[in-house]
This record gives sequence, structure tokens and C-alpha cells, in this order.
Amino acid sequence: MGFDAQRGLVVSNVSVLRAMNFVSDNQYGASPEILAAVAAVGQEPQPSYGDDDVTQRVNSRLCEIFECEVVSFPVINGTAANALALATLVPPHGAIVCHAEAHIAVDECGAPEFYTHGAKLVPVEGSDGKLAPERIEGALRNFQRGVVHHVQPTVISLTQATECGTVYSPAEIKKVSTLARARGLKLHMDGARFANAVVSLGGTPAELTWKAGVDVLSFGATKNGALAAEAVIFFNPKDAGDFEYRRKKSGHLLSKQRFVSVQLEAYLKDELWLTNARRANRLAKLLAQGLAQNSAVEIAHPVSANAVFVRMPDALAAKLRRNGVQFYNWGTRAAGYTLARLMLSFATPEEQVARLIELAR
Amino acid sequence: MGFDAQRGLVVSNVSVLRAMNFVSDNQYGASPEILAAVAAVGQEPQPSYGDDDVTQRVNSRLCEIFECEVVSFPVINGTAANALALATLVPPHGAIVCHAEAHIAVDECGAPEFYTHGAKLVPVEGSDGKLAPERIEGALRNFQRGVVHHVQPTVISLTQATECGTVYSPAEIKKVSTLARARGLKLHMDGARFANAVVSLGGTPAELTWKAGVDVLSFGATKNGALAAEAVIFFNPKDAGDFEYRRKKSGHLLSKQRFVSVQLEAYLKDELWLTNARRANRLAKLLAQGLAQNSAVEIAHPVSANAVFVRMPDALAAKLRRNGVQFYNWGTRAAGYTLARLMLSFATPEEQVARLIELAR
Amino acid sequence: MGFDAQRGLVVSNVSVLRAMNFVSDNQYGASPEILAAVAAVGQEPQPSYGDDDVTQRVNSRLCEIFECEVVSFPVINGTAANALALATLVPPHGAIVCHAEAHIAVDECGAPEFYTHGAKLVPVEGSDGKLAPERIEGALRNFQRGVVHHVQPTVISLTQATECGTVYSPAEIKKVSTLARARGLKLHMDGARFANAVVSLGGTPAELTWKAGVDVLSFGATKNGALAAEAVIFFNPKDAGDFEYRRKKSGHLLSKQRFVSVQLEAYLKDELWLTNARRANRLAKLLAQGLAQNSAVEIAHPVSANAVFVRMPDALAAKLRRNGVQFYNWGTRAAGYTLARLMLSFATPEEQVARLIELAR
Amino acid sequence: MGFDAQRGLVVSNVSVLRAMNFVSDNQYGASPEILAAVAAVGQEPQPSYGDDDVTQRVNSRLCEIFECEVVSFPVINGTAANALALATLVPPHGAIVCHAEAHIAVDECGAPEFYTHGAKLVPVEGSDGKLAPERIEGALRNFQRGVVHHVQPTVISLTQATECGTVYSPAEIKKVSTLARARGLKLHMDGARFANAVVSLGGTPAELTWKAGVDVLSFGATKNGALAAEAVIFFNPKDAGDFEYRRKKSGHLLSKQRFVSVQLEAYLKDELWLTNARRANRLAKLLAQGLAQNSAVEIAHPVSANAVFVRMPDALAAKLRRNGVQFYNWGTRAAGYTLARLMLSFATPEEQVARLIELAR
Repeated sequence: MGFDAQRGLVVSNVSVLRAMNFVSDNQYGASPEILAAVAAVGQEPQPSYGDDDVTQRVNSRLCEIFECEVVSFPVINGTAANALALATLVPPHGAIVCHAEAHIAVDECGAPEFYTHGAKLVPVEGSDGKLAPERIEGALRNFQRGVVHHVQPTVISLTQATECGTVYSPAEIKKVSTLARARGLKLHMDGARFANAVVSLGGTPAELTWKAGVDVLSFGATKNGALAAEAVIFFNPKDAGDFEYRRKKSGHLLSKQRFVSVQLEAYLKDELWLTNARRANRLAKLLAQGLAQNSAVEIAHPVSANAVFVRMPDALAAKLRRNGVQFYNWGTRAAGYTLARLMLSFATPEEQVARLIELAR
Repeated sequence: MGFDAQRGLVVSNVSVLRAMNFVSDNQYGASPEILAAVAAVGQEPQPSYGDDDVTQRVNSRLCEIFECEVVSFPVINGTAANALALATLVPPHGAIVCHAEAHIAVDECGAPEFYTHGAKLVPVEGSDGKLAPERIEGALRNFQRGVVHHVQPTVISLTQATECGTVYSPAEIKKVSTLARARGLKLHMDGARFANAVVSLGGTPAELTWKAGVDVLSFGATKNGALAAEAVIFFNPKDAGDFEYRRKKSGHLLSKQRFVSVQLEAYLKDELWLTNARRANRLAKLLAQGLAQNSAVEIAHPVSANAVFVRMPDALAAKLRRNGVQFYNWGTRAAGYTLARLMLSFATPEEQVARLIELAR
Repeated sequence: MGFDAQRGLVVSNVSVLRAMNFVSDNQYGASPEILAAVAAVGQEPQPSYGDDDVTQRVNSRLCEIFECEVVSFPVINGTAANALALATLVPPHGAIVCHAEAHIAVDECGAPEFYTHGAKLVPVEGSDGKLAPERIEGALRNFQRGVVHHVQPTVISLTQATECGTVYSPAEIKKVSTLARARGLKLHMDGARFANAVVSLGGTPAELTWKAGVDVLSFGATKNGALAAEAVIFFNPKDAGDFEYRRKKSGHLLSKQRFVSVQLEAYLKDELWLTNARRANRLAKLLAQGLAQNSAVEIAHPVSANAVFVRMPDALAAKLRRNGVQFYNWGTRAAGYTLARLMLSFATPEEQVARLIELAR
Repeated sequence: MGFDAQRGLVVSNVSVLRAMNFVSDNQYGASPEILAAVAAVGQEPQPSYGDDDVTQRVNSRLCEIFECEVVSFPVINGTAANALALATLVPPHGAIVCHAEAHIAVDECGAPEFYTHGAKLVPVEGSDGKLAPERIEGALRNFQRGVVHHVQPTVISLTQATECGTVYSPAEIKKVSTLARARGLKLHMDGARFANAVVSLGGTPAELTWKAGVDVLSFGATKNGALAAEAVIFFNPKDAGDFEYRRKKSGHLLSKQRFVSVQLEAYLKDELWLTNARRANRLAKLLAQGLAQNSAVEIAHPVSANAVFVRMPDALAAKLRRNGVQFYNWGTRAAGYTLARLMLSFATPEEQVARLIELAR
């Protein structure tokens, strides 16, 4: 069936009068296909707590998509997915190496620390939101293996696509996983925007994950069209350990779990996940190209997914806001300039992109 | 609009061939009104993380319904509601007095202990699933106030309706809260089936909660028609403390939070919550009366909400199962007898109740 | 060298004027031999954090005493020993079955829950402070294996000697461990008064522990003559798991760890641990026999270790207190009667026992 | 009585043959005065769990020394002191700003994270081991007040003397506390080597703590002559909150607590704490001056306390080791060079310092 462009248009006509939302891809509602699937559940009974048919089918579908026997668990959001995945792999005396701007480090109020019962996040700097192997090695040198005074690094966590809208190539992931393997560490991928990375890179989901050495993936759907759904995917079933107990104990196992699973089912059906991501990525490219026409505007990071980071004069930023463009300031690097994050979504009205480009001319 | 009896019928025709589900009220799907409200959210953007209009409206509606200025927080299920509410009130060295069969004690895999960082549950026996004040006092005597060797009781938790399908009258709640107040304890009510208790008792929501001394309520909707929605309601705003940080840190704040809030909005609209509960309670009474016609069947607890506990010969239990009746065995007290829990739901097809009565004759 | 009776006498002359302390064996100071060993450490340097010679020697000595290759860790007290031992074996979603009056359940402010990150203690009643296998089985039936809603029992914890001053025979321990093995549970022994049990029962330390199925022992020394020293002893080295990280992370690894280890070394030297316990046990028997001469006095539990529980008229209890006898009231069972706990120590002056008997005539 | 130089000499004669220990001040034993005080406790009974006379006297003595009404708690080591102090002030969603090389950040295996139930440490770089106010401000800008996605900075922690052997002047502390006050943060001081800072700076203990805005101090004794003793000192009694429950629940309240308290009593008596620190500081100066005579040797940080950091050619470092000098490599900055940490203790034999200087010529 594909994306309902007509409906997107109707929505946007209304929105334009109020605001043009480039704040976050998590502010948009849900894809019509996914809403329809939820409504279709109806009121008939099914076994609760994930013993329903849908949850099983979603796991089978993920096995197909990732071309391997995965163990998957639907949860409601990325924080739960990340924190539960990490806690399953990292003991309380463990540590997680991640980018200094990673969502798990900055935006989850310390959820990984809560779920791991006090493990440490080791933030590592890196350009364009990406971890560089040599920086990881530098960070690891601060923790001596087997020395009880030091927390013990256990997992490296990558974000794909990154917080800066960039992506790791399979070769780049492989470098990190090789380093991880050599030290007995596991590799976690925060894939809140995994779909955007897949369509950007063009590889298969398998090539971007387990074939490149990823052990566990937080497979995002919420930002890309679901109401509240992600899946934690273990590529090595043994790694799943006591995940199910952790999910239950933290209140993340739903009694009517199939309401999460049907979202994932619809998301994966007829490539909706890729269609939605493709649209968001395309609009991001379009926006970046349009904005770049103004020589006072600088694109701060390569635009590979659905985020556009632009450095612009404060005056231009103010003008945009006056005209209803909503976005985050991402800190300033130089006086007189604003670093803006402009997020594109599966549902961002295309003419808002055109309007924004026009305003920025 | 009311309950869609027609649709209920259609569903049941299909179900009868397969099974008659009296296992749990959490196995049924969701009310058509609530599913429609979710679908109506569409894809338009709104501020995320609960800063949307719907969440505000739900809080206002709860203030009206409870006739007081409440602070409320939507969450996805009862385990999250209970654990977060308790953790907000109970320090790690605290203790929670509850019935020995309470959901928080038995069915949440230790979620309260996880969320409170190691507080203790103090299970107290009591007939018909209800806490008796003198038993609470007996339990409290084991913990000396201000003695660091002992955990310090901080909260008493009641379940309304109880795990046995009984209810506390306002006077009974008042007795417990008086005891709590005298010792500086707070009173929590696990209201996973609060609607069933309200229609059973006939009082106002206010009379059953803060007017009777309840400080915080886990207000359930999931078992009574929602997909995944409950609200934690603090009747004294100061008690809410750092709830918001705890909800975020545990991954229970959704980015598209309004998808939970619209469920609550629809649930509270046009008294759907009471209509649904009334139906389930009525079917429970009907079932109990029908089963009681067989003199070999004994109703184990007063039927005040939507649960029917019956003691019956094993042979009858086996016959029911053979004929597609699904239910939980609730332990046996005497050889040759089965104690069955039969749960009624907002969506249990009425003719299944009739069929079950017939089978049990 | 044995116990310095002379010194005991001097101390008691002073004490008699003030008070006769039967409150707890943890109120007495330390054995002269142990104090001397601590003083002898001097100021010379040694590797820190347990890499010293003494800590090694203590482990070797424990291997000899227990006739097996143990892995042992000195800690400062019983709460640390129990909580760290249990946390090493029990996951956050686990449960620990113990007697309802066990120290870990009642007197440690929830330390096991803190260290296990929220596991549950399952208190089981039992006469004379002892767990009966059938009661354990009854308790275990409440937790379904592999069902995520229930915490999963992982360890049974026995106290030897018990809180009531009774002891488990090797055969009794074996029954519990057989039950544990059959269900895949580990067996922990809280041996805060292990020495008292050994001298009471007459068996070897091995017979009372691993030969009877104990997996890990909190081996107490503090109550029996040390300043602050216990050892956690794993009889199966693999069970030690990440104990060392847990000890460090909780601040229970001392930089000058040898100051704990030398206490254990002196405690185990020349059978001081058994000599001290023998004295305390002997005084307890003496006291019980003396008190039993008064027909109004009833011995509440068999006197097998260093505790005497006596039921006496309130008037007699008051008289004892007036005359300087200090002890705990252990709850009352009948009006007009006091249940007193009288603890005997390695250092209780013998003539105080005589004086107490005289007062109680 | 003062320091027993004679005994120090005897010890050193033996040691010289084996090794010269400059590894850590925590590898030396204990001051004779403190060992004598411990031995003098004897075996007489006293109320347990800190209700003894000595613990009271120590608190009074600390009130005198700090010229204010403090609430103090003896514990066994610095990790427990820091972690318990921080957990009392910092909620699970809080954060602690500290130097990137602080003991709490690097050497405690994540104890603060465990004790705070998952709060975050925010490591800040700074030269000579010291936090600079502008760097703190920079770090704080990453955390928005009241935004639930971000952990909330609650405490700044300084180390005095620092990990680099430098000290903060009262004016420097004041600058940090002013910044803290302005943002509603508390100021913690890790004073594992507080005595060394006091004698180095020459001010009063009050001037270096509460008069400069410190709220809570981990007052160290172990590294400076005690067996295992520190005191957590709250300068504002209200801040002590539920410290006592946390200490108990973590197993850090000893039954024979007075064995820790007598160490502190002896440590504070006749200025032993200052005498010991003065000796260590004097030897550090001596060593630094002596080493600096070799132009190939560079002193890496100002020598203000009892640590000497020296950069020297690898060949020299190797020669020292061959001759029995023990020390830590503190990372290398340039090829061919070793950065050595040489720690001086209250008990380091003076002629070992002379010998080391000679070797380094």
C-alpha cells in the first residue's frame, strides 16, 4: 500500500498555519498502516505476556530480514531496549564504551546505570558522532583487566544512524567489532534510526549487523512510524540470558503484549520501515541541498540519514523561528552563529521542507 | 456510544469453536472506543514526552472525577504504576506492608524491590484477599521504629478490587488509613481493577480513595478495556516527589506519550470505564449464581467484582476444560477438588457465561 | 595458650559493679590472642588489598580445617559476609529461602536485597529457629520455575547455630541440601556462630558443611573473639564468580586487608575458635541448668550453643534487671511472662553466671 | 608519645634488604599509638553498633577540631566513606562532578554508582589533579536543570590532597563552593589525605572545610596511620539524612564499632594525625629536592603533600627497580620516559629516601 501521501498533505495544510516541526522525528504520530494494524487487534482474547501469535510471527519475520536465527523481544521504546539489552550483557562492575553524545550517555537520565545496577558509561569523543577505534583503544587503556579497583569494560555501544545523522559503513563497524572481539567485549548497536541507516547505506540488515560483528541490536520503530515499539534483537541466542526476567521485573512486559507486536508486524510488512525511512532521508538531502544554496549556511555533518545539522547566523535562525520553524539549538561554537538540528520524519510534509528552504534563502 | 454488543457477539461466535476464555481479564483485546481514539491520533506532530495536550486533558479529567487537585502520570501497565508509585514513597531501607497474595508481592517478579533499590515487602495473610488492621499491626510490631537493623515500614498497599474478587468498603479502607496515619505511613492502592470496585460499591471515586485516606492510586485501565494504560494518581501533589525522573530513568516515559494518554481519555469519556466494569461485574454475578445451582460447587469468596473463585470436584473441572473452558487452577485445598479462578472481562461474550453454567450443571 | 581466665576475672570484678552483660555475644571485646596478633602487624609495608602473605595463609589454613580446596574471602562482619555471598549466587530476579527469624531476614536492614539488587527473601516459619524440609517445599511451591512473573528461588540459607541457640545435625543439613540439589538451588550457611555449632555437635567442620551439601559458608569470628572478621568460604571455587568485584564495589575490600586476616589467623591458631566457643557453650549449659532449678522458669529452646532462651514471670525478669542483669526481651507469648534471651560469650565472666543463677532462684 | 623513630628504624633495616616501598601510603601498617589503642580495648563489653562511649567521644573531638557541631560516622575505609556520603546526598537520577582522575571515578570499581543506585559521575579534566571552576561550569552546561532526560548534578566532589599530591587553597575551595551554592549543589571533599593537606596549607581544619563551603568530608585516617578507619563528617547535621540506614544496609556498621572509633580517637590524640602527615610531607619534599638534582629528572606536579610524581628516563626507572625501589608507573607521556609516582608515608624509613636520592643521582 505504501505511504499515504494524500493524508500527509491534509495534515500539513493544517500544520503550516501553526508550525513547521523539525524538532524531532519522535514528535510525529504514527503511520496509517500501523494505526490500522493496532485497531484491527480488536477485543478478542489471546494469551497474554507475549505468548500470542503475533509476537511469534514478528520473531520469524526478523529472522528472515536478518537472515539468521535471532531471539527478539518487543519493548515500548528505545530507552527500555537499550537499558535492558545492556543490563543483560553488563554486570554491575562492568562498563560500556560509547560516544560522548550517545543517547544512552546523554538522554536517558542514567537508565543504563539503573538497569545494570551501577555499571559505568565510558564516553568517548569522536567527530561526526562516530566512535573511532583508536579513541576506543585509548579509553580502554584506563581500565586494567582483572583489576578489581577498575570497572571492567564489557560492551561497546554504537549508534546507527548516529546522533549527528551520519552512518557507520559495514567496514567501520567491522573495525570496532574486531577490536571488541580481541578484548572479549560485546558489540551493541543502538538502532533507534536503524532503518534510516539501512536505506542510506544500501546494504542488507545482516551486513550492517551480525555480519559486521554486532551482537545485539536495539531495532527502532517508534521514530519511524510506530506508536511505541522497538525490538531487542540478539543475534546469538545465548546472549539473551535472563533478558525475560529483566523485562518483567522492570515492568516492560505488557499483558497485552501483542499491541506492541502488531506495530512491528505492520512496520516490517511490505517494507513500510524502509519506505518511511527512505522518505525521511530523501527530505533530509533535499533540505540540506536547499539550505546550502545560502553561502552563510554551513552543513555541519554529512547528511546520511534524516538529520540536518546547520550552522547559520543567529539572525537567520531567529527569522526561521519567527516564521514557525521549530528546531533544537545544538549548542553554539562561535558567537553570532546558531547550530541547528533539523529532523526529518516519515511524516514531515514535503512542502514544509520547500518552505523552510525558501525562508533560508 | 456504549459497548458494541454486536461486535462482541461476532467475536464470540468464532471463539466458541475454539475456547471460552475465563483465564484473565488481561487476555482480551481493547474496547472499540479506545482503539478508535488511538487510531484518531494520526500522524500529526505534538510535543513529545507528555508535553502534549491530551496528557494535560487527562489530568484535568481525573481532577474532576476524583474531585480534587491530583497529580497524575500515565504509564503502560500496572507493574510500572505500582513499582514507580512505591519507589517514589519508599526509601531503600523502607518496607511495604501488603497482602500475602498481592500482585506486587507475587506476580511482578520483584519489581517493587528493583524500583525501590532493595526495600522489603512484608506479606500479611488475610481472608478473602483483604488486609485486616490487626494483622497489619501484628506485622508492624516486628519492625522497631528508628532501629537501623530493621527496615522501616513506610507504606501499606491495598488492592482494590482484591486478588480474590472482593472489595474494601470505604469504612474498611478508613480503618487501614487511620492505622497508617498513626504510624506515619502512606497508603497506596493498587487499583488494577479499581473500576470494578467503584461499580460494585456504588460510592464515588473520591470516597473510595483520598476521602478514605488513600495517598496514591494505581488507576488501572488495561484489564478493563485499554491496550496498555494506567495512571499513577497522587492525591497530595507533594508526594509525587521525583516520580518523573524515576519514570524516565526506567524507560517508562514514552516519546509519543499521547498514545497512552488518549487511551485514558477514551476510557474516562462517557463513563466507558464504569460501563465496561459494570458489564464484567454483572457477568461475574450471573456466573456465580448459575454455578451455585450445582450443590457440588462452592463459591470460595464473595463475588463483588469480576472474579469468581469456585471449588468444584476435579471431574467437573476436567469436563469444563474438555469443553473448551479456560481458567486458572488456584491451588487445591482438599484432595479431589479444584479451586478455579474464573475471570470476567468487559468483552467476555455473555453466551459463554451461559454455556459455562450449562456445562457445570 | 588458651583462654586467659585471670584477665577474664579482672574484667568481671569491675563489671559486676556496673552490669552483667547477657545482651549479646557481640558486645564483648576481643580475645587477647587476637588483639596481640593485630598489634604485632606493626607498621611494616605489605602489598595491599589482600595480596599480602597473611591472607594467603588464612586460606591455606581454612583448606586444612575444612579438608578441601576452598576459596575464601575475609570481610569485616556477618552482614557483609552474608550479603556478598548471597549476591554472588542470586540474580536480581532470584529468591532466597530462609527462616522467618533469620538474621538476614530480620536484622540486616535489607542488606541482601540491596546487594542482590532486589532479590526477594522468602521467610519460612519453623520451630526452634530451624527450617524444616517440608516447610521449604511448601514455600517453593509458590514460585513456578521459569515463569517470569515469579522470582526464582536460587538459594536456601540456613543459620548454624540458629537464632534460637539450637543446631542442625549433619543429617538435618543433608535433608535440606538434598531438597536444594533436586531443584537446582544452592545452600548457604550463615555461620556467625559456626564455632558454637561445631563444638556442640562434635563433628568435623567438613561434615557440617560441604560433606552435608553446604555450598558457601559465612564463617563467623566476630561474635566469638575477633574485633571484626568473618570469612566467606566457597566450597566449590566456581561459585565464587565475581565475588571480588562485589566486595570491592561495596567498599568491603580493605587496603590494609591483612588487619582482618591476622584476626582470622589468630582465631584459627591453636584451636582458639573452638576453645572460645566451648567456653561460651559450657556457660550456657551451666546457666540453663541453674535457671531450671526454679520451677517457675522454663527453658524455651534446647540449649545447644551459647544462647539460653527462658520464659519467666515478669516479676523475676524485673528483679534480674534491678540487679544489673542485662538481656533482651524476645517478645512475650503469655501475659505475666517474659521471654528472655541470655547470650553467653567467650568472655562472659563465669561468676556472673553463678550470680545470675542465684538471683533467679 | 609521638612517632617511634626507633621502631621505624628497626623495620627499615629489614626492609632495605628486600624492598623500598614507595608504592602507596596504604601499604604501610599502623601507627604504634593506634595499635596500642586497639589492643587496650580488651574484652570488656560495651553497647554495640556505635552506641559505645568511644564513638561519642570521637564525635565530640571532631566538633572541637572543626570548631562546629558536626555529625560524624566512623567507617572502615575511604570507598565506604565516599560512597555512603555521596549516596546520602545524591538521588539515583543525580550526578556527581569530579576530577577525571578522582579516586571515586577511577579506583572504586563504581562504588558511588552502586551506592547511589545508578547516579552518574561526570569526570572533568584539570591540571595537577585539580578541578577548575570554569571546567566545572562547562560540564554543568551539558545537564539542563529540571529536564528529565538528563541526570541532575547534585554534588561536586573535590579531593584534598589531590591524586597528584597537590592541594586546594581555601580560596580555591571557596570558588568551587560558590559555584556549587549558586546552582544548589552540595560540596563533598574526599579527604583520604586530608591531614597532609592541613599541614601543607597551614590553615585550620575549619578553614579548609565548612568555612570554605564544604558540606561533607570523608576524613581519612587509614593512609596516615590507622588500620582501617575514616570518618564521614557532615557539617550541616540535616545533610546526614538516612546515612545510618545506608551504612547498616551496606554492612558498614560494625557490631564492635568501637574498634574503629578507638583508632580515630588515638589518631586525633596529641595531634598524631598532624605529626604523621607532617613527617610524610617532609619526606616528600626531601625526596623531590633530592631527585631534582639530576637534570634528567623532572618533577611533574608541585609537591604539596606526600606524593612525588617524577618524569625520568626509562633507564633510570629500571635501575631504581633493580635496586629494590617499588613504585607505580603513572602512564607515559613521551617515549623513553617513565612517569613514576613515589608515595611517602608516616612510616617510610627516612634512610630509604636518602638511598633513593642517591640511586637517582
